[in-house]
Amino acid sequence: MVGPFGGVTAATMLQAVELNPQRHGRPIALTVNYVAPIADGDFEIKTRAVKTNRSNQHWIVELSQAGEVKTTATAIFGLRRDGWSDTEIEQPQVCAPEDVEPSAPPFGVAWFDNFDMRFVDGAMPDAANDPVESASSTSTLWVRNNPPRPLDFVALTAVSDIFYPRIFLRRGQFVPAGTVSISVYFHADDEQLAAQGDDFLLGTARAHRYSGGYFDQSARLFGRDGTLLATSHQFVYFKA
Amino acid sequence: MVGPFGGVTAATMLQAVELNPQRHGRPIALTVNYVAPIADGDFEIKTRAVKTNRSNQHWIVELSQAGEVKTTATAIFGLRRDGWSDTEIEQPQVCAPEDVEPSAPPFGVAWFDNFDMRFVDGAMPDAANDPVESASSTSTLWVRNNPPRPLDFVALTAVSDIFYPRIFLRRGQFVPAGTVSISVYFHADDEQLAAQGDDFLLGTARAHRYSGGYFDQSARLFGRDGTLLATSHQFVYFKA
Repeated sequence: MVGPFGGVTAATMLQAVELNPQRHGRPIALTVNYVAPIADGDFEIKTRAVKTNRSNQHWIVELSQAGEVKTTATAIFGLRRDGWSDTEIEQPQVCAPEDVEPSAPPFGVAWFDNFDMRFVDGAMPDAANDPVESASSTSTLWVRNNPPRPLDFVALTAVSDIFYPRIFLRRGQFVPAGTVSISVYFHADDEQLAAQGDDFLLGTARAHRYSGGYFDQSARLFGRDGTLLATSHQFVYFKA
Repeated sequence: MVGPFGGVTAATMLQAVELNPQRHGRPIALTVNYVAPIADGDFEIKTRAVKTNRSNQHWIVELSQAGEVKTTATAIFGLRRDGWSDTEIEQPQVCAPEDVEPSAPPFGVAWFDNFDMRFVDGAMPDAANDPVESASSTSTLWVRNNPPRPLDFVALTAVSDIFYPRIFLRRGQFVPAGTVSISVYFHADDEQLAAQGDDFLLGTARAHRYSGGYFDQSARLFGRDGTLLATSHQFVYFKA
């Protein structure tokens, strides 16, 4: 509401670590805190490797503009190892993305154009209509980059924040809201990401509680093949 | 497995911010990253207020021993405001804590003695028995401090990590495992915490995916009155 799409900021923080020659391993977990609105223009990102262990590495990342910190992040990179594995949840059973209409961005926000979003449940309210409250906070959608391109950890990070604030759905209207903190857990390895190609991902998100001007929302991102690629959780400020 | 109970470390990081005279507002969100094992002995915690906004404040926190960083954290403190509120989930229907046997710590770990834990589902495996795998990763328990004392944000933080690694339950045995990152979202305000007194809280946690030597687990902490006090999410390293 007051700066660029939070998913792009999160992806940019991760990319900054990816580009650091000290980087060891692949993304495991990322937390991004939205400190202040990022203005159009230059920004600087400082990455600091706090500690490199044998199998993982801890980073602190800060994005600033004109010396003022706008975003902080911590990132954990690491090596994955083969071992016991299981997935306890299944992707929602929905029709194929080819059978769902692409969603028209409801208002003129540039980042919408960078994604092909096809909602199967919980589409964004239409500001042209009277508010219709929803008892459910769940949105489920197919999403891919526009134009399509192969999935990587940075793109997956952006998509992990693709879900508009759940309060919009519950209230059936737009209200002031902004993420204060998001965490992304990367369940997939390089091979599993590569297997997605440039295909649609299926994302689903819901909230648990709204209180004191904050609410949480949790999201799951699946490949079309059913692989759980990432889970994300965020805490969001709102005024309603 | 390789240091103190992660919940105590997380609580200590939050407490360090609470004690800083610059602190503005109450805990909103906390992420703690476990960088390296903390040894018995002195430690130092540095707290840095990255930015104080009108309604919230962002912190970076680092715990070190002999100059080596062992734990990092980011914390968001802020003011809560009245407004629209709702809770979308209900606490599990279970019998009262008075009707559940206190759990006996399964092995000699000191921090167990600091909590009165009463499992109603998914108790810790007994290392004396042959492994019995579980199809479910859910544990649900009543928990309070031992000795009982009034709930505050620091105690709530510790309890948000009370759930032993879900891989133990699935595999029916102890395996090497350790949290790499935990995030806590504080849904309750001071008044709602105070209303809990020193009563039991009901906690429930489950995992979603185990892959590449990591799994996630998500937890919910309710007051006995049904208030959702906090949600927490963590990503855990394991070897199995």
